Amino acid sequence: MNTKTASLKLIMLLALPSLVAAQNTSTVTYIPKHEELVYTFGGHPAKMHLTPGTTLITWTEDCYDGAVKSPNDVPSKVIPPGHDNPQTGPFYIDGAEPGDALAVHIIKLEPAREYAISSSFPGFGALTATSYTALLHEPLEETVWFYKVDKAKNTVRYQALKSKHTVDLPMRPFLGCIGVAPAAEEVRSTIVPEAFGGNMDTWQACAGATVYLPVNVPGALFSIGDGHLVEGSGEIIGTAVESAMNVTLKIELIKDAHLSWPRFEDDNYIMSAGSYRPLEDAARIAYNDIVRWIAANYSMDLQDAYELVSQTADTDLTQMVDPNYTVVVKVPKKYLPAGEVMNGMHRKLRTK
Amino acid sequence: MNTKTASLKLIMLLALPSLVAAQNTSTVTYIPKHEELVYTFGGHPAKMHLTPGTTLITWTEDCYDGAVKSPNDVPSKVIPPGHDNPQTGPFYIDGAEPGDALAVHIIKLEPAREYAISSSFPGFGALTATSYTALLHEPLEETVWFYKVDKAKNTVRYQALKSKHTVDLPMRPFLGCIGVAPAAEEVRSTIVPEAFGGNMDTWQACAGATVYLPVNVPGALFSIGDGHLVEGSGEIIGTAVESAMNVTLKIELIKDAHLSWPRFEDDNYIMSAGSYRPLEDAARIAYNDIVRWIAANYSMDLQDAYELVSQTADTDLTQMVDPNYTVVVKVPKKYLPAGEVMNGMHRKLRTK
Amino acid sequence: MNTKTASLKLIMLLALPSLVAAQNTSTVTYIPKHEELVYTFGGHPAKMHLTPGTTLITWTEDCYDGAVKSPNDVPSKVIPPGHDNPQTGPFYIDGAEPGDALAVHIIKLEPAREYAISSSFPGFGALTATSYTALLHEPLEETVWFYKVDKAKNTVRYQALKSKHTVDLPMRPFLGCIGVAPAAEEVRSTIVPEAFGGNMDTWQACAGATVYLPVNVPGALFSIGDGHLVEGSGEIIGTAVESAMNVTLKIELIKDAHLSWPRFEDDNYIMSAGSYRPLEDAARIAYNDIVRWIAANYSMDLQDAYELVSQTADTDLTQMVDPNYTVVVKVPKKYLPAGEVMNGMHRKLRTK
Amino acid sequence: MNTKTASLKLIMLLALPSLVAAQNTSTVTYIPKHEELVYTFGGHPAKMHLTPGTTLITWTEDCYDGAVKSPNDVPSKVIPPGHDNPQTGPFYIDGAEPGDALAVHIIKLEPAREYAISSSFPGFGALTATSYTALLHEPLEETVWFYKVDKAKNTVRYQALKSKHTVDLPMRPFLGCIGVAPAAEEVRSTIVPEAFGGNMDTWQACAGATVYLPVNVPGALFSIGDGHLVEGSGEIIGTAVESAMNVTLKIELIKDAHLSWPRFEDDNYIMSAGSYRPLEDAARIAYNDIVRWIAANYSMDLQDAYELVSQTADTDLTQMVDPNYTVVVKVPKKYLPAGEVMNGMHRKLRTK
Repeated sequence: MNTKTASLKLIMLLALPSLVAAQNTSTVTYIPKHEELVYTFGGHPAKMHLTPGTTLITWTEDCYDGAVKSPNDVPSKVIPPGHDNPQTGPFYIDGAEPGDALAVHIIKLEPAREYAISSSFPGFGALTATSYTALLHEPLEETVWFYKVDKAKNTVRYQALKSKHTVDLPMRPFLGCIGVAPAAEEVRSTIVPEAFGGNMDTWQACAGATVYLPVNVPGALFSIGDGHLVEGSGEIIGTAVESAMNVTLKIELIKDAHLSWPRFEDDNYIMSAGSYRPLEDAARIAYNDIVRWIAANYSMDLQDAYELVSQTADTDLTQMVDPNYTVVVKVPKKYLPAGEVMNGMHRKLRTK
Repeated sequence: MNTKTASLKLIMLLALPSLVAAQNTSTVTYIPKHEELVYTFGGHPAKMHLTPGTTLITWTEDCYDGAVKSPNDVPSKVIPPGHDNPQTGPFYIDGAEPGDALAVHIIKLEPAREYAISSSFPGFGALTATSYTALLHEPLEETVWFYKVDKAKNTVRYQALKSKHTVDLPMRPFLGCIGVAPAAEEVRSTIVPEAFGGNMDTWQACAGATVYLPVNVPGALFSIGDGHLVEGSGEIIGTAVESAMNVTLKIELIKDAHLSWPRFEDDNYIMSAGSYRPLEDAARIAYNDIVRWIAANYSMDLQDAYELVSQTADTDLTQMVDPNYTVVVKVPKKYLPAGEVMNGMHRKLRTK
Repeated sequence: MNTKTASLKLIMLLALPSLVAAQNTSTVTYIPKHEELVYTFGGHPAKMHLTPGTTLITWTEDCYDGAVKSPNDVPSKVIPPGHDNPQTGPFYIDGAEPGDALAVHIIKLEPAREYAISSSFPGFGALTATSYTALLHEPLEETVWFYKVDKAKNTVRYQALKSKHTVDLPMRPFLGCIGVAPAAEEVRSTIVPEAFGGNMDTWQACAGATVYLPVNVPGALFSIGDGHLVEGSGEIIGTAVESAMNVTLKIELIKDAHLSWPRFEDDNYIMSAGSYRPLEDAARIAYNDIVRWIAANYSMDLQDAYELVSQTADTDLTQMVDPNYTVVVKVPKKYLPAGEVMNGMHRKLRTK
Repeated sequence: MNTKTASLKLIMLLALPSLVAAQNTSTVTYIPKHEELVYTFGGHPAKMHLTPGTTLITWTEDCYDGAVKSPNDVPSKVIPPGHDNPQTGPFYIDGAEPGDALAVHIIKLEPAREYAISSSFPGFGALTATSYTALLHEPLEETVWFYKVDKAKNTVRYQALKSKHTVDLPMRPFLGCIGVAPAAEEVRSTIVPEAFGGNMDTWQACAGATVYLPVNVPGALFSIGDGHLVEGSGEIIGTAVESAMNVTLKIELIKDAHLSWPRFEDDNYIMSAGSYRPLEDAARIAYNDIVRWIAANYSMDLQDAYELVSQTADTDLTQMVDPNYTVVVKVPKKYLPAGEVMNGMHRKLRTK
């Protein structure tokens, strides 16, 4: 399906109780078979070991488990129960211990198919009754939109189903899911975002960004999935423009980082992500994290940092459809004191 | 630690990979050693098999993992990380399959120690900043109250620490935690209540009540813990009057019950429990469940059932401190049409 | 419509720009004409002056503005826009100044008609999309239930419309609306509860209870309405069993009470009411108020009071349908230190 | 009566019970005296009549009522109670009737002083306990930051108080408050945003934008205030960089527009604003409004519009500190079907 190195077959022998040995090479390619995909954060043995500093070339299936292949495939009927957001991984990062942070720099993200998919699910979405906002209404009709991907123009084509409207939307590919095994022995579904990252559905997890994740278990047990080509704020219908994805990442380790929640960094911003309900608590988590981060990193008074964030923050209301809602708060680096965050890890990882 | 039947030692051989064989006797006694306690719902092999119809005599440790033994033991220092709400179990209920429901009738609950404990945790509680309602305040001071248990008078003694006030509070013992393994391969911390039951912290789980739990995995993997002697609505400080507990339960199985959320029944009420955030979503879950339950069970029109619940429901705002908040909605049986719910299971299980 | 004293006609001359002089008599009867009813808290001149200590005999129209007179009257069509929850009042309480509290003791509440009404409104209710929880669903069908009132048996008769079920429900009459003019020059609709009281829809406002309301403007501008005969927790369909009501109250004034939110007292409980969204904030308001009230009134340490409330509070989730949701938290007096609250006002006002 | 500057003094005689006559001229200048400012939406007689099509040149005081004049002026001590967010207005727009919409095009916004102010208030802000998220913590210390305004460079200077950090932030001036009299006879404080607009604190109300407001009362009773020079998403400390402002607006009327909530338009976006709690309800209001707006305006199927918004929306989490939280959802015009919204009003109003 994708060309790979010779060592690939070896790593694909997977249900194996013992792990594939850690890679010494600086670049590793791993393309999972369908049966190797997993549907939880935590709860699965690592597929392979990766040494910090490794560049990983890999592939992710779409959120529909690859089961929706035509506009006539009704997701709720063709997806096996619990097979949402299949994950590539988990990967055991050598040396990662609780209290450390992973730094995952996303180098490249490209759609792996000629089409992408979006749909409404019954009982899922920001503008419908759901299993958690439980009401007496009948569910909205399940509907599937197929998008044609034009890689040359970097667009996908929106085509209304029961109306006359067609428009090309520019692609902004990102990983809807990026996470590690949760703390406290928990195992969470891949539809959930929380302190371990997971289904944050934020476009900030795009090429050029570095994602920092708290390590909760030895090896971190990192995984990715749920590639999105386009998504508006809120992801209100419950899905983005969903696609299998070719992915290139570089993974590093920061010892004793003691993050509480995921953070992001790109060339222009530092960012904190909160995922919970109600939405104001997700936002409080993110705002609180970035205020305390800035205060600690730059030796600023807490109220001075509070004021600085209050006047300079930009916010991505990434999704309000998953079991927890996600808010990403961004502060432009140009307004911060001189100096770097996270030991300059983003600068070191970014490629020119 | 507690005197028990002769067969006890046998069942206590536990870390064993193979399970103790299912019991044919109608009464089973199982008193866990400390190292047998677990700290998650799901994620652990069953400690023993139980045949539906079995009466289980057992014991639960307090929410402090038994580590707080005097007023000088500061919980956040003496409890090993993640060792909140230790569970007795899990038990594999023979024949239980996803879609079935467990019916757990609580026959007897008695405090197992002469004292009980309550405390405030830093960053936990309804009237403080928490890890999810993240604010810039300093945490409130961690404080421990010891309660003397008077079994003869059925009271515990509240003694203010920095004020002059002493008062005896009547005991109303219940299990703060009662649950099964979650759906979708999830494993959840024992501080969490959700659709699988868990840390619902509701006094409705008291002697004389029947708790119905949806079965998500073969065998259900049922467990209990977190005994409470007294608790007000909301459990606002984050803990009840907490105690190790001697427990007698009878467990039955209802095939193809297809519950979405836990339900309760006692001689006077049918009840539905919702656990989520925000609190109105927890309440919506419970109200929606009981309206649909009544409509389906009694062949009533949905709006007629909505109106009936609207005028007759009583509500227990059980706790708003755990990662999800819990609401239990109760409808008096005397206002319902003639007939039974859940195949009359509560009537069959209750003891005269 | 109701038999009244001879002086009645006099007080009914009402649209008058100048106020009726304050009453020296200890009992005043005031039965409003329909055109004298008001639909806001604040924003209207007082209908009459009342001296503290006065017993007021009066009458309130039902929440439907009296416009629903048969099961065929569709509320959304027959009620003039904005004419929900008509109020009797406002009354100017002589001597009341901002910072004081009104103490309103409810002596008698009786249904004033032979029938009572409940209905679902489109876009209103706890289990439907609403104007604030705005979703894409079609509204549920508007439906009206008529209840026959049996004063001798103290019941109302629930009669299902599209199902076979009839049952008598015991009456527990209370005032859905009881409030004063808001602070900060605000005027609020009579469907809103907030710090000024208002549409709290709590059965705690029943005969035998004393309601304490913060005074925000000179004279307080007190009013009542929205009588309920029966209501379950949550008032989930959006209405209780609604009725015009004959009302007897006694009103007193407590100088410099500095309440933030309404409080209640009966022979057994002291209570605090919070009304806001999300529901946990309504609950926090009520819990925070009662903890601080107890700490201040009984000179208790704040954490000791927190613990005492945590173990003894009972809670009424009164409604989650109005623009703000209401929670009433109750602490039994028998668990409090010796002494009275609010200068013993409830004891003085209660009738044997 | 007043063609601009010369006749200005005359219009400043304002407590007058009768209104200034409607203006025939196309440009009106109105600079309020301090005693003419108001502190509510609704509840005050109009200061003057304006004919649709009028350009209004005016001025607004800062949110501190102009009382904070040096870093030593503590806001909670120097501002008279209830004097937050003073409003210039209200203006009676001739011909405006309930069901119509005002279209307010903001032509110019400039800081009217050499300094601007930000501060934290005790019990106010996104990362503190507040009067509605009531907790047992002590309030954070009240703190005031003074910003020097550099009009030439279009910046304000952030200067940390207890840390070493100084940085210039680019100005993006906007009106924190823009609103009309509420529906249902309500009068709301100027710290509140709701369906009538009000204290939305969104930078989208900047020069070049058109704000559409639902008319609830004859004449609309439009007012503005609370100028902001800089503000981050969320306005988390409770204030932006606050300034008195010189303002030029053009006001038009759209008959029978039947808006439910405020909308905005600029050259690139159409936008809907929701203001409520919890934050997800504010967002639902805005998302629901823009989906239904697009479906109706472009004759699109509701689910097709839902999908289009889901993939293209951008969101401004404008503030989560006021009594209601505000979310503004934006959809780029370039992704919409051909055609205009609101009868092309923005195009007609915008200045080249």
